[in-house]
Amino acid sequence: MAHRPNEEEPEVTAEQIPAGFRFAAVRAGIKPSGKPDFACAMTEQATAAAMFTSNRTVAAPVVVGREHLVAGGGVVRVLAVNAGNANCATGEPGLAACRAVCDALAEKFSCAPQQVFPSSTGIIGVPLPAEKLVRAIPQIEKELGATPEHLRRFAEAILTTDTRVKFASATVATPAGPVRIAGVAKGAGMIAPQLVPHATMLSYIFTDALVSPSTLQATLKPAVEATFNCISIDGDTSTNDTVLLLASGASGVTIEAGSTTAEAFAAAVHQVCSSLARQIVEDGEGAEHLLVLHVTGAASFADARAVAGTIANSPLVKTAFAGCDPNWGRILAAAGRSGVALDPAKVSVSIAGMPVCRNGQVAEEFSRDRVHTAMREWEVPVSVDLGMGEASCTFYTCDLTAEYVHINADYST
Amino acid sequence: MAHRPNEEEPEVTAEQIPAGFRFAAVRAGIKPSGKPDFACAMTEQATAAAMFTSNRTVAAPVVVGREHLVAGGGVVRVLAVNAGNANCATGEPGLAACRAVCDALAEKFSCAPQQVFPSSTGIIGVPLPAEKLVRAIPQIEKELGATPEHLRRFAEAILTTDTRVKFASATVATPAGPVRIAGVAKGAGMIAPQLVPHATMLSYIFTDALVSPSTLQATLKPAVEATFNCISIDGDTSTNDTVLLLASGASGVTIEAGSTTAEAFAAAVHQVCSSLARQIVEDGEGAEHLLVLHVTGAASFADARAVAGTIANSPLVKTAFAGCDPNWGRILAAAGRSGVALDPAKVSVSIAGMPVCRNGQVAEEFSRDRVHTAMREWEVPVSVDLGMGEASCTFYTCDLTAEYVHINADYST
Repeated sequence: MAHRPNEEEPEVTAEQIPAGFRFAAVRAGIKPSGKPDFACAMTEQATAAAMFTSNRTVAAPVVVGREHLVAGGGVVRVLAVNAGNANCATGEPGLAACRAVCDALAEKFSCAPQQVFPSSTGIIGVPLPAEKLVRAIPQIEKELGATPEHLRRFAEAILTTDTRVKFASATVATPAGPVRIAGVAKGAGMIAPQLVPHATMLSYIFTDALVSPSTLQATLKPAVEATFNCISIDGDTSTNDTVLLLASGASGVTIEAGSTTAEAFAAAVHQVCSSLARQIVEDGEGAEHLLVLHVTGAASFADARAVAGTIANSPLVKTAFAGCDPNWGRILAAAGRSGVALDPAKVSVSIAGMPVCRNGQVAEEFSRDRVHTAMREWEVPVSVDLGMGEASCTFYTCDLTAEYVHINADYST
Repeated sequence: MAHRPNEEEPEVTAEQIPAGFRFAAVRAGIKPSGKPDFACAMTEQATAAAMFTSNRTVAAPVVVGREHLVAGGGVVRVLAVNAGNANCATGEPGLAACRAVCDALAEKFSCAPQQVFPSSTGIIGVPLPAEKLVRAIPQIEKELGATPEHLRRFAEAILTTDTRVKFASATVATPAGPVRIAGVAKGAGMIAPQLVPHATMLSYIFTDALVSPSTLQATLKPAVEATFNCISIDGDTSTNDTVLLLASGASGVTIEAGSTTAEAFAAAVHQVCSSLARQIVEDGEGAEHLLVLHVTGAASFADARAVAGTIANSPLVKTAFAGCDPNWGRILAAAGRSGVALDPAKVSVSIAGMPVCRNGQVAEEFSRDRVHTAMREWEVPVSVDLGMGEASCTFYTCDLTAEYVHINADYST
């Protein structure tokens, strides 16, 4: 059994915090553990881009968040996240609860309700006690601050079954000065995001760049497609998945669509998304291995991702990696049921850099013992070449362990 | 934790055995355990109908079996099954090994090679030692017989991770006399068959009816769609899945397409398929619960099956049932990502006969404790009504336990 590296939290420094945001996290009494469960971010006026879950069972905050972004013209003043209750499958009362929290925050912070962006994560089907969140708003106001510690507390309060905070940052040097990007995320289970541009993995990315909502959305979408939409822990796409990118403009640096600066900004956003996506899988429930799947030689990116996703979600592949078992036949079987028109006789697979299958048959140099030993590492690269084309995809997943079953067999009772 | 009921083997009596078949099973040395691993069934001349896996990574015996059915005009003399090696991802040498075994059997039993139908199940990617099977053929000839004990040995030899044999039978009373149907099956993992008419669940159904190949195929297909194609243990569709229906004609009773007798025959085949499909799930690797999903109110059977299949394959749903946790939100979340155009506000769910969700919200009478207690039973019925239409589907699956992980984390090492 391998162990997760870097058990210590990522360090956040003052230089990494985008200007123009304040953060707070308090105990509202939603999490049974009594831990901080209500986090807010404030900004004078940020443009916003968002992507939401494609699950048809959507949580109330996803419905309300979409409405608010449209009604508010893509401008957000307050981001409000509770953990411990997903406010999903809660019907009209759930929508009313979500709106009550937004209304109370709007009143307290003197903005329009549609400038409040709500998010929830936790158990599905339990009414959200809005009054607990409303009662905690004065405490939120008191706690607001812009230090690394404030952002760390925000990142901590949004966690559920996660074992640690997820944080990533990037700085873009531009002729007009530096632009900072910092993102946080939560998620360790019900993770197989399939985000669409209108999105319980939660990820919030803050930047002090000055960006129009349309340029911001155009920056976010391709980054999400290649990062958050290329991870899976358990294959269960959540009802609450949300990625929100907020740009405060406080750096004074404008990002013009099509400029060199916009390219550098997009690359930095991609890098932050990629880091957060990987951190989510690294914290996968019960995970003992991080699998980095490189599917190459595909006819299209969609094909590459479909093959990678099917391999990533195969219980037989995931349990084989839990056991450090180089049972590559399970990888071929998963690829074969992906729906992609592949020719098994052209498929080659390597595990931990060692060929195990070449053109659909066992590789001559395959040594079960050597591959087995290499699979004991925490991070195991797996390459699958389809021999069909030029497209590729990098997909993060984790193994399936007995601990995963223990974590999920008594979540709500 | 519930326990599987009926741990004792199903009883097979002489009256249940269709006339015109002889069975044998021997130790060929393929299974590392040394248990019987080579089973054959002989008949003077049987018509055949078959369905095979839709996985694009197909095993050599599936390729050869399809060829032989076409070349032989749907007539089979010898059915030859080995367990312990799937002969999949073995390239041209795998095809040659499969053909060598068929050729040797054809020579021994004086028939054409295309009248031999091969099947394999076991590990993928390991060359099949054809010579071991060929060497065992004289012993097969010695062991042939038509008693219940012979069929039981056949059923036992085809098992891999199964814990017990699967057997079902039916007798159809016709004006011309009785027709017998008896089926055996194997499979406890890599089970999510998606069989198409041109299919490592293996199922062999024998009947002494006299039926043309086309009528036999027309009988088999709808039965498979509603039974074997509506089960899942782990969502991993195998490379070797095969359902074969052989009709010896030895009863002298002809089944004419469109006749009342044909209807009764089709119903009996359906009943045998349904029983075998359920027995496979009941023997699911590590299973502690049998989930009987009834999806109703769907716009089409395909929609109902897509929703049922997504719920059945959700790790979060499966682990919740392992823990007797009435976390119905996970069922709603799975239904929502099934790709079916459903309205969550119209979805109602009951577990063990007790409403837990009505129109997308928690049912008023929901008692977590009462449902939790009811979920301790081995068999748990789950009803999901989509409120969209009139179509429905019954789907069998099992829970996901730590034992499943243990079984699959060291299968090949």
